[in-house]
Amino acid sequence: MNPDITRERQNASFDVEKLTYILDGGPEKTKRRRQIEALVFSDPDFNEDDPNFLSRSERYDQAVRKSAQMILKLREYGIADPEEIYHYKSCVHPGRPSPLDLHLAMFLPTLLNQASPAQMDRFFMPAWNLEIIGTYAQTEMGHGTHLRGLETTATYDPATQEFVLNSPTVSSIKWWPGGLGKTSNHAIVLAQLYSLGNCHGLHAFIVPIRDMTTHQPLPGIVVGDIGPKFGFNEVDNGFLKLENVRIPRENMMMKYSKVEPDGTYVKPPSSKLTYGTMVFVRSMIVGESARALSKSCTIAIRYSAVRHQSEIRPGEPEPQILDYQTQQYKLFPLLSMAYAFTFVGQYMTEIYHRISEDINQGDFSQLPELHALSAGLKAFTTWETNSAIEVCRMSCGGHGYSRSSALPDIYVEFTPTCTYEGENTVMMLQTARYLVKSYRQAEKGQQLSGIVSYLNESQNRRVQPQAVASRRPLVDINDLSSLVEVYQQRAATLVEMAAKSIQQELQRRKSQEDAWNNSAIDLVRASDAHCHYVVVKVFNDKLKGVGDTAIHSVLSTLALLYAMHGITKNSGDFLQAGLVSVPQVLQISVRIKELLSQLRPNAVALVDAFDIHDKKLNSVLGRYDGNVYENMFEWARRSPLNAAEVHESFQKYLKPLRSKL
Amino acid sequence: MNPDITRERQNASFDVEKLTYILDGGPEKTKRRRQIEALVFSDPDFNEDDPNFLSRSERYDQAVRKSAQMILKLREYGIADPEEIYHYKSCVHPGRPSPLDLHLAMFLPTLLNQASPAQMDRFFMPAWNLEIIGTYAQTEMGHGTHLRGLETTATYDPATQEFVLNSPTVSSIKWWPGGLGKTSNHAIVLAQLYSLGNCHGLHAFIVPIRDMTTHQPLPGIVVGDIGPKFGFNEVDNGFLKLENVRIPRENMMMKYSKVEPDGTYVKPPSSKLTYGTMVFVRSMIVGESARALSKSCTIAIRYSAVRHQSEIRPGEPEPQILDYQTQQYKLFPLLSMAYAFTFVGQYMTEIYHRISEDINQGDFSQLPELHALSAGLKAFTTWETNSAIEVCRMSCGGHGYSRSSALPDIYVEFTPTCTYEGENTVMMLQTARYLVKSYRQAEKGQQLSGIVSYLNESQNRRVQPQAVASRRPLVDINDLSSLVEVYQQRAATLVEMAAKSIQQELQRRKSQEDAWNNSAIDLVRASDAHCHYVVVKVFNDKLKGVGDTAIHSVLSTLALLYAMHGITKNSGDFLQAGLVSVPQVLQISVRIKELLSQLRPNAVALVDAFDIHDKKLNSVLGRYDGNVYENMFEWARRSPLNAAEVHESFQKYLKPLRSKL
Repeated sequence: MNPDITRERQNASFDVEKLTYILDGGPEKTKRRRQIEALVFSDPDFNEDDPNFLSRSERYDQAVRKSAQMILKLREYGIADPEEIYHYKSCVHPGRPSPLDLHLAMFLPTLLNQASPAQMDRFFMPAWNLEIIGTYAQTEMGHGTHLRGLETTATYDPATQEFVLNSPTVSSIKWWPGGLGKTSNHAIVLAQLYSLGNCHGLHAFIVPIRDMTTHQPLPGIVVGDIGPKFGFNEVDNGFLKLENVRIPRENMMMKYSKVEPDGTYVKPPSSKLTYGTMVFVRSMIVGESARALSKSCTIAIRYSAVRHQSEIRPGEPEPQILDYQTQQYKLFPLLSMAYAFTFVGQYMTEIYHRISEDINQGDFSQLPELHALSAGLKAFTTWETNSAIEVCRMSCGGHGYSRSSALPDIYVEFTPTCTYEGENTVMMLQTARYLVKSYRQAEKGQQLSGIVSYLNESQNRRVQPQAVASRRPLVDINDLSSLVEVYQQRAATLVEMAAKSIQQELQRRKSQEDAWNNSAIDLVRASDAHCHYVVVKVFNDKLKGVGDTAIHSVLSTLALLYAMHGITKNSGDFLQAGLVSVPQVLQISVRIKELLSQLRPNAVALVDAFDIHDKKLNSVLGRYDGNVYENMFEWARRSPLNAAEVHESFQKYLKPLRSKL
Repeated sequence: MNPDITRERQNASFDVEKLTYILDGGPEKTKRRRQIEALVFSDPDFNEDDPNFLSRSERYDQAVRKSAQMILKLREYGIADPEEIYHYKSCVHPGRPSPLDLHLAMFLPTLLNQASPAQMDRFFMPAWNLEIIGTYAQTEMGHGTHLRGLETTATYDPATQEFVLNSPTVSSIKWWPGGLGKTSNHAIVLAQLYSLGNCHGLHAFIVPIRDMTTHQPLPGIVVGDIGPKFGFNEVDNGFLKLENVRIPRENMMMKYSKVEPDGTYVKPPSSKLTYGTMVFVRSMIVGESARALSKSCTIAIRYSAVRHQSEIRPGEPEPQILDYQTQQYKLFPLLSMAYAFTFVGQYMTEIYHRISEDINQGDFSQLPELHALSAGLKAFTTWETNSAIEVCRMSCGGHGYSRSSALPDIYVEFTPTCTYEGENTVMMLQTARYLVKSYRQAEKGQQLSGIVSYLNESQNRRVQPQAVASRRPLVDINDLSSLVEVYQQRAATLVEMAAKSIQQELQRRKSQEDAWNNSAIDLVRASDAHCHYVVVKVFNDKLKGVGDTAIHSVLSTLALLYAMHGITKNSGDFLQAGLVSVPQVLQISVRIKELLSQLRPNAVALVDAFDIHDKKLNSVLGRYDGNVYENMFEWARRSPLNAAEVHESFQKYLKPLRSKL
């Protein structure tokens, strides 16, 4: 054990194990998570070659092997709870998506949710037993977030009682679905349904794409891998071009909407039924943000505790880089953010489950709020985390660029969350739509409830952004609840400003749509402020439930740092709205420095509390024992370029060059 | 040619070719650059396989082949001007560093600058003719920016007149030098010189590391590749462990300092002599920022002109995504930044050459200012560009994640600039040291000249940050010169605040060093504001020299956008210092929207003016002809995973799995 990191652990003011329980949601959850980790990490069937040393084809091969093993083991051990499967999977493929992800997380659930009983009989067991391996093919080369723009067609032919599927243009080729390129033999294809000359919009169809015995593509199917990406090396994201592919009528997903044998189209009873999954996935991504950020902070903070560099005082030994104020200022606000996002992830899961029960009982009333919240928080947390990972990586100096640090991989595996499951700017605008709608309702005297209820008050206050600067701010900057209030008022102000921008555009005779587009900058800003408020509020609420004094104290410091750092980073907003004064902004800067010093002795313990197994972290810089350099050397020596002392290019090019010069 | 992009070009209000001349520094430079591009791109010897489809060893192999070819051709064509070599190289290895970079850019120049005449006789011609291939080994596993911390030792043995080189610890192993792993047979090793029992600090030694015939490592040398990184796949960044390696006394670089045969040490005449190279390299990096950003903007803006998505007005066709205000707000400020950094790069080159002449005439007086400027601007432009590339990438939606977009590669090849040649935070603090020193001089009544002369005025104004908020701002937000003034005053305020923070810490009986560390956040902020001011100022100055009315108009719009966007992003600073008022901040937000609309019709022409050859851009999304989708499909089909219709993993793992479930 590295002595620096041992000393750090001795200095902690709180019981790390107890904090881990809070992060996991209770000691039982911690225990079970560790059991699952032990199951995987002690299992020789999951031994792997370091993917950094493999070609893409070898990485794909290894991932398929481990996925196949995983499915056997899960059944052997009888692990069936989705959360436990998730933990198991995240140990088998630590930090990496896998070729069977879409089969497990999209294909099977879509069957469960959208297949008719007859379709369940036909497809579910073969899919459960991996005879059918499926993916979910929605995105096209030319069309992403805007589903109505999808071009793939499924035209019903009553003569044969078949659908004929086509990719009518290059831009309509299905593009991106994971596992589509090489792994799947079936795809759920989203296509515009045509029957009896009418278009009935987007519907889902089960399309066999490869022969179930030979795995060769079927007639009319052009399928393959879309080529290398930024990360996702294990996944065969694929393309699919359909050329007059015929499938039986019964392959349209028929639980809700139907096409009768004669071609008659039957509408689904409600359009909100597929909403739930989308909200669920976005809520999950909030948790992914927290996990990616926790990993990155663990690596950067542990490494900063063992790395010595430069000098603060001449003549003294090089200090740990964690002693530099600039390093603390880079990392501790991100550490506080990791805690904040973890609690927001828990909060999202809780309200998702609560509202799911409502929905099961036919009560859809809370769905719009949850939808708006999940969209905005998905965008807010992924954008923030995306930048934060890179700050962590760069805070490790040169070694952050080495794949042995794991930080490059954390980044490339995480960054797609900013785009998939709803492009972030589009998500922010969806949340803004809800906020502006709520604002207008409050304006009309309607009483709002839920998370947007603060917009009622803003109506009472009748904020005039230009005028408020002169109001005397009453905020107590050292009181977290008071800061929550300030964030709330900032959000209210920015929602109001966005709504007024739309109003002004309309007064200039712009159409509703142009007014919206011409206010989009303000709308995104309002959403961002709303989400920021929610995060600060959730963090504050979480503190109320923490009984352990020592832990309450350190979490309070983190929460205060999170809130104050957000104010300095956005001080223009708060000053503009007159919510804090110029002297207060200066006081906050001074307080932040004090908070950094207070957190310094607990920094390593605070990342230890995330309790990320070394095999999951997979980082030479972030090792629990802090023995960085010897292990980095050992890792480098295994680099494939070192397989031969002399690379063949010397004999081929460099040696012959001499005689020519 | 894609009709959308053709229409965009027809809408431009200025002559693209003339703007290209301004960016290149004159029509002659443009012409010569294009000649060199034609030389390389028409040369079948430089044909290459797409590196995205190769293993790392194959990528290295291909890069060595092309580098060897390049050296032959440069001599054949007699290309010897450094700028022209740079252009040629950037076409041979578009956007990618190469294994011979350090030989050409560090080993040969170090010989030229630091070798004695006798050493030149021995080493230069063999190195020029690639018999000796060298690298520059400074960084160690445990030591980067802080040179005094390096641990490698070179101990003089008068008995044999040799130096004995050692890596005494794991952390002292040389780590990172490009071309060290497999390519080089010599290294210039930086080591602590010991002679007659005294340490004389860091000196450079020429160390043979591989046999010149067999290329096998020499006795006592442990050398190899440090393993895969985030980018830099073509380069064998290496490690070097020295175990009692003996080299002749004459292998110490002896132009300035010397060790006599008896072990007597002779000091160098000046410590500033090696300063120049460092400043030069950092100035060059400012230009690299401009180029990386120009490429990224070219790709994102052209793609945004051909990509159609979603709807602004219902029922109408999907608009070009460049019509969305949010997309313009993401990209146009970055476009303005690309122009700003290009002009700052030109400015740095100019003053570097001017000051180099002074230095050659023994006048070192301008060196500290240039040193401070190059350090800060290196950090400022690389940090800004680093984030900006990712904004460009993510603005392309899903396809930005594909390697075919080139954006992932631009990012990974660029991001190391934030760390190498001086870690950015350290650079910012070096600039801050100069600023605070200058501020103290002004405080003492000394008249400052040069770029920091504004600190004189700040002494006259005696700014009290807490009090100024009430002063009535006099800035004309639509006048760029007025905005330059505002940026200048912001910098002055923040330098003063940082200086005062140090003062306050000292009053609390902190040591000078602790006071500095406890003010580091403020110091970095002050440097950042100073650099931001310089960029805005240089952009404004550049405009004065632009005669063409149409070009002057569009560049003025860009400059105004750059300045205004910076104010909104940092509005807290400007409000706090009382430099702009709350209503002015709101006016600026409105003006920014107008500027976005004004730039919209010129956006494609403005990136066309960068004149980046398709083969240099190497991006399916950024193609000049805009034919994105068909080429993306064609590229994907060449992905190695598509070599066989059925991947072997199906037979190995997936098919056998069925019988087990």
